[in-house]
Formats: sequence, C-alpha cells, structure tokens
Amino acid sequence: MNLLTVGTVAFDNIETPKGKAEKVIGGAATYISLAASYFVDKVSIVSIIGGDFPTAELKYMEKKGINLDGLQIEQDGKSFFWGGKYHDNMNKRDTIFTELNVLADFKPKVPKASKNAKYLMLGNLTPDDQLSTIKQMDKRPKLIALDTMNFWMDTAMKDLKKVIKKVDILTINDEEARQLSGEYSLVKAAKVIHKMGPKYLVIKKGEHGALVFHEDKIFSAPALPLAEVNDPTGAGDTFAGGMMGYLASTNKTGWEQMKTAVIYGSAMASFCVEDFSVGRLKGLKKSEINKRVKEFVKLTSFKM
Amino acid sequence: MNLLTVGTVAFDNIETPKGKAEKVIGGAATYISLAASYFVDKVSIVSIIGGDFPTAELKYMEKKGINLDGLQIEQDGKSFFWGGKYHDNMNKRDTIFTELNVLADFKPKVPKASKNAKYLMLGNLTPDDQLSTIKQMDKRPKLIALDTMNFWMDTAMKDLKKVIKKVDILTINDEEARQLSGEYSLVKAAKVIHKMGPKYLVIKKGEHGALVFHEDKIFSAPALPLAEVNDPTGAGDTFAGGMMGYLASTNKTGWEQMKTAVIYGSAMASFCVEDFSVGRLKGLKKSEINKRVKEFVKLTSFKM
Repeated sequence: MNLLTVGTVAFDNIETPKGKAEKVIGGAATYISLAASYFVDKVSIVSIIGGDFPTAELKYMEKKGINLDGLQIEQDGKSFFWGGKYHDNMNKRDTIFTELNVLADFKPKVPKASKNAKYLMLGNLTPDDQLSTIKQMDKRPKLIALDTMNFWMDTAMKDLKKVIKKVDILTINDEEARQLSGEYSLVKAAKVIHKMGPKYLVIKKGEHGALVFHEDKIFSAPALPLAEVNDPTGAGDTFAGGMMGYLASTNKTGWEQMKTAVIYGSAMASFCVEDFSVGRLKGLKKSEINKRVKEFVKLTSFKM
Repeated sequence: MNLLTVGTVAFDNIETPKGKAEKVIGGAATYISLAASYFVDKVSIVSIIGGDFPTAELKYMEKKGINLDGLQIEQDGKSFFWGGKYHDNMNKRDTIFTELNVLADFKPKVPKASKNAKYLMLGNLTPDDQLSTIKQMDKRPKLIALDTMNFWMDTAMKDLKKVIKKVDILTINDEEARQLSGEYSLVKAAKVIHKMGPKYLVIKKGEHGALVFHEDKIFSAPALPLAEVNDPTGAGDTFAGGMMGYLASTNKTGWEQMKTAVIYGSAMASFCVEDFSVGRLKGLKKSEINKRVKEFVKLTSFKM
C-alpha cells in the first residue's frame, strides 16, 4: 500500500558524547521515509527544502523508491537547520539553535498522485500543517499516525487537539503523554488520550523501549540494548517510519499487526542510533533487518 | 528447596505523591522473604530488630512459613528506621533520615539449620556482612544472589568487589551498573561485571522493567503498567525475593529458569507498589499471582 508522510527535510548539527556531526542530513520526513522504504515501494514525502540541500541525497531517496513530487524546493532559500547537544545520558538533549529558514512559510501541498495514500504518517510539524495535510486527502486514509512533541502542547494545544481527534495512532514520549492527559500513570493517561481520538497510543521511551495502549490492552516493546549508541537523533521518526511502513506492507490495521509493527519500528530505530545522521539507514539489507527482528524475539521470549 | 536471606527488618517513614505512611514495616529481608514465601516453604531470615518491633508482624511472617531463628532481637534496642520521600517521578527518592539503631553493631549469625540452604539471597547490607554470611554456610550454596547499591560503591568498593566475586547473580540499577563498570552502554557494562564474578547481571529499571545479561544473551522483562502506584519502597527487594523464590522452587539455575524467574519477580514487584509498606504482599493468593504473570505474557507477546 502507498504511504505518505509530511515532515521536515533538514540539516542537523549534532553533538553527542560519542562525537560531532555538522550540517548532516536530518528531518522527520527524511528518517520516516527512509525507514518506511524498506517495507513498501510507494512512499511519498510532502516537505520543503532550500537550494542548499544536496542533490545527491535527493537522488539517493528517489533510488530508494521515495517519491519527492511533494517536496517543494525554494532555490533561493535555505533548508531548515537544527542544532542539538546530547547529555551524557543520551535520553536528554538541548536545542542549541533552530533556523526555520524555508520552513517559516511552508504550506504543505499534497500532490494529486499522493492524495489517495492509504497510510498517512504526520511527522512532527505545526499542528496546523498536519491538519491541512489530512484535509487535502481525497478521502480519509485507512490509517493516520501523528507524531508531535511538548513544544506544540505548550504553544498550540488547541490546534493540536484538533489533529489528535482525527488520527488513529499518536506517538509521543512518556512525559508528553503525562502533559497531554494530566495523568501521571500511563494507564490512566492512555484512557484520557483514547477519548481525545487515537485508538492507539504509542509511548516512545527511548532506551527503555515503547508501550502501546489500545482499548484495555497494553503491549510493551523493549529497545535492543546496544554496545554502541552514537546518535539518537531521528530514532523516534525512524521508529514511526518502520512501524507505518510495516503496517502499510500488511494492508491491515489490527492489534496483532500493530504489535509486530512496533517491533519492526524498534528494530529500525536500533539501526538508526548506531551511526550519526541517516548513516545506518542507508543500504540496509532486508536480511539485516530480519536478523535484528529475531534479536527482539530472543530478547523477550520466556517459558511459563 | 530452602532459601536463606540476610538483610534488614525495619521501620520506614514513607512519603510519596499518593500519601504518607509512618513507622510502617519495611526492610530488605522483610520484602524478600514475604515475596519468596509464595514460592517455597522453607525461607529463613538472618537479621536484627529491637524490642520495638511488633510481635504481630513476626507472627504473620512465621505463619507464612518464614523461619525467624536467625532474627536477633535486642529487647532494649530500637529497630533500624529509615525515612524517605519520593519525587513526583516515583523513580527518584530522597533519604530524609537513617537511624541505624540495633543495625549499628549487627553481625549476621546463620543458624545451624539454615547453613545448608541451597539458595542464598544477600539483601542490601554492608558488603562485610554479606561476605560473612556466605562464609558461614556449610558449603557453597547452589545459587547466590546479591543486591547492593551505589552507597557501598562509594564507601566500600573494595569489600563490595570481594562479595561480588563470590555470587552468581548481581541485582543493581542501571546507574549503579554504569558506576560499577565504568561503562555507559549496559551491554559493555555487563561484560565488565561478568568478569568480576556474577554470571547473571540483573539490571532493575523500576517502571521500565529489568534487563538480564548472561554470557552473550540478554533478556528484557517489562514492568507492568499500573493505574495505581502508591509506594515503590521495597519493589526491588520484592522483585529479588520473587525471583529467588521461584528459582528455589524449580531447584534449577539455568537461563530459561532465570528468565521465567525474572517475570515472577516483576509480577511480585507489581503487587508491592500498589500499596504502602508490605500491605499488598500479605494475603496474596497463588491464583492472583498466576493471573498477573499471565498479564506479563500478554504484555510481551507478538507474532512474526
């Protein structure tokens, strides 16, 4: 099935305890689409870049089957540029700078050919742009997932709630789930958030894995303990891209598919953090992905 | 099989965001033995209390089959008394006071009848007392588990390493594993710690579950997401007690048993945090425990 994603395509400056990377490729839609491209042939992006974005990177994405018809290119503008520094505990980071550049006046435009996408992944962006994307679809996609963050809860909660109401899956971290719901217990938070709209709440916990809440059911996916974590940037987007890519490949949306999808998303995220930028998401083999998924099976199997 | 535990039997003052409890029953050996008593008939304690400890509580423990022959009672002394306050994030707490009282001059004495225990759980205590307990055994127990904390790493690392060398299982939290090994990656930390002695490293992550490292294998056990967490005090001890109690009930010590044991330990810990003090560990039914373990199966099951 075809998957559409909207989100940033950007440059990042990254500093982690393991090293630095300057003006490397980043952005939510970049990570999402690369991760999803390992599962489905038809992935398309709605985003914006400046004339400074390397053509070679766009060509690589197209080679991976990612359709860039919805990628607006402002030749005279500069691409969105974010700089961040991670603490020793790589679960925390500080934003060093944010240059919106061409993103400042971005209005998502879904190309005609992508308006029938059955799977829609709304990457972290203004709630207004996320909502506009949904509205441009020919009909309501089979499955809509939304990623967002505390920044939008602080500055645009009203708009955010409008989008949340329209989606099937919401992916946020544990602190954000608490902020959004006003409940400390994630079990209680999930009940509040389900009432806001999403029938699936996926709580991303970084090195502690992910929790999925659906009706009265809960699924806990671990993160794979790794010897080398070099850069957590984009792990959440990669997780979402792997999850939605897998779901689109099944053409189903049930609880069993959702759980397996979260494992695939976690496996993709485990690759992502091993290298800076999208380094590890390029040139992965399907056999490597399957091998890693098997590690998740081993990691969680026990006999009763 | 018979299980011996050494550790504190104490009073706690506890303040959490959910309420306060004053001078309630606590102590590592209390939680460990109560949790283990649901799995094995022969559990014995080596510890010390003052004349102020309620007889009714001792009688309850005996009723649960816990042998108190190794519990020294200083009629003129006061029991160990600890006060702690939890942050809004219940993963963190501050110690408000520590009154060692009779614990100050405690020397563990293993009763003759317990010297042949096949399973030994060394609860958090001075490394010196933990080592002394091992030395008093008739012969090396089949399985020795050690719980400790950063305080002993800061103040008695040399002694602590001597005990660590002699045990099969070490249970600590993630920060402590990093401190002990000097490695941030838990995968690398486990390799360092395995070389110190323990063939099993169990990393307790509170609401994020537990990780077990053994040779080149890893197992991830989730924590059960709960609607109500009232008091995390004793959850780590209860986890260890459930784990060792289950292992003792199997009379085995292999990887498969270890994984299942960690699930049982996690299930017992999930009861523990639902109420203050040992409230929830009293009068549990075997059927309740099995039902909860089934929730862990559901929580982690997925299809590939």
